[in-house]
Amino acid sequence: MTCIITAFAQSPDRGRGLARDMRVRWALEEVGQPYDVRLVTFRELKERAHLALHPFGQIPTYEEGNVALFETGAILMRIAECHAGLLPEEPGARARAIAWMFAALNTLEPPIVEREMASLLERDKPWYAERLPLLDDRVRLRLGELSVRLGDAEWLDGPFSAGDLLMVTVLRRLEGLEILEAYPNLVTYIDRAKARPAYKRAFDAQLAVFTGKVSTEG
Amino acid sequence: MTCIITAFAQSPDRGRGLARDMRVRWALEEVGQPYDVRLVTFRELKERAHLALHPFGQIPTYEEGNVALFETGAILMRIAECHAGLLPEEPGARARAIAWMFAALNTLEPPIVEREMASLLERDKPWYAERLPLLDDRVRLRLGELSVRLGDAEWLDGPFSAGDLLMVTVLRRLEGLEILEAYPNLVTYIDRAKARPAYKRAFDAQLAVFTGKVSTEG
Repeated sequence: MTCIITAFAQSPDRGRGLARDMRVRWALEEVGQPYDVRLVTFRELKERAHLALHPFGQIPTYEEGNVALFETGAILMRIAECHAGLLPEEPGARARAIAWMFAALNTLEPPIVEREMASLLERDKPWYAERLPLLDDRVRLRLGELSVRLGDAEWLDGPFSAGDLLMVTVLRRLEGLEILEAYPNLVTYIDRAKARPAYKRAFDAQLAVFTGKVSTEG
Repeated sequence: MTCIITAFAQSPDRGRGLARDMRVRWALEEVGQPYDVRLVTFRELKERAHLALHPFGQIPTYEEGNVALFETGAILMRIAECHAGLLPEEPGARARAIAWMFAALNTLEPPIVEREMASLLERDKPWYAERLPLLDDRVRLRLGELSVRLGDAEWLDGPFSAGDLLMVTVLRRLEGLEILEAYPNLVTYIDRAKARPAYKRAFDAQLAVFTGKVSTEG
């Protein structure tokens, strides 16, 4: 059964693949599942029909038969439960890959988003310049720990998993910034992930929404 | 097999049960599983032995036979996989409860922690007073959406689940603050959860570490 996901009708990152639908598109490509996309405007995000699907008025959502989900992490868990390719089968290895999913979303992403929000929303405030080093330090703390743990391994724990997928999409928020480039093994980790055919297909699909070369549901 | 979790040797919240070991203790009490606790000092958190268990030098960790995990969300997933009582069996309902787990950790907790960190680390900065309303607005946005979705239901989606457990422990970070008390249904939701016998046992166990009335592993 083809699932339906939602994505921004107007991509705020201009097709850079940083919106969270990219994470779900990539996961579906990794497991070889087709999907339809319903594009949602910013106004529609806060309307009753979308809030019934997503109580916090965000994208992506995921609909598959009678199952309707929100939260990217939960959508990836669902895809991984139904299809091989995102989580190991051995229960211990599976639990560790899930730990990396949560680490990406709950340990790495919050300080990265906080720094990003400050640069978007507080850049013209008198305190911006003085606060930025504090925010950078919080991000660096986590990048440093992640870099040490990754070492020269290819992926975070054995074969590529949904933990790597989420971690790479979180780290990509810092792409091109000096703060990330201080950790060469993290940069090559991101590049390694972006070389995956499934990543490329997902990236091209979300880019096509921005360039207008897209055919979507119905 | 009795699992071993880690907790702070010196509880920074003075036994209020806001450290993340409370989440794992509560989950283990809900499923009726015994556990041992290893207390870790702040110095030990950053030492090699602990970093091998937890790459980001935090608590809690979870060891059960050959499985060693970090990240509270992943630990709860593991406990829920092995024991009934934290996630529904029906796959769709299970996926929705997992969505609430991620929503608690990835949508509600980040703005709440950001506000908390500002009040802890930036209270003496010249910008603190002007920034606080911005931070409050970000928290209120999510509390408002959550309050609407909860309505007058007992729990977020059917019976009590690990999603409620995580959401309540996240909301408790705001306990006693006006910002939370503006949402009476969230306050009674928290109270309802705190009335659960498993919550009480877990709370008393973490409090005993602070008051010194504790027997821990070996």
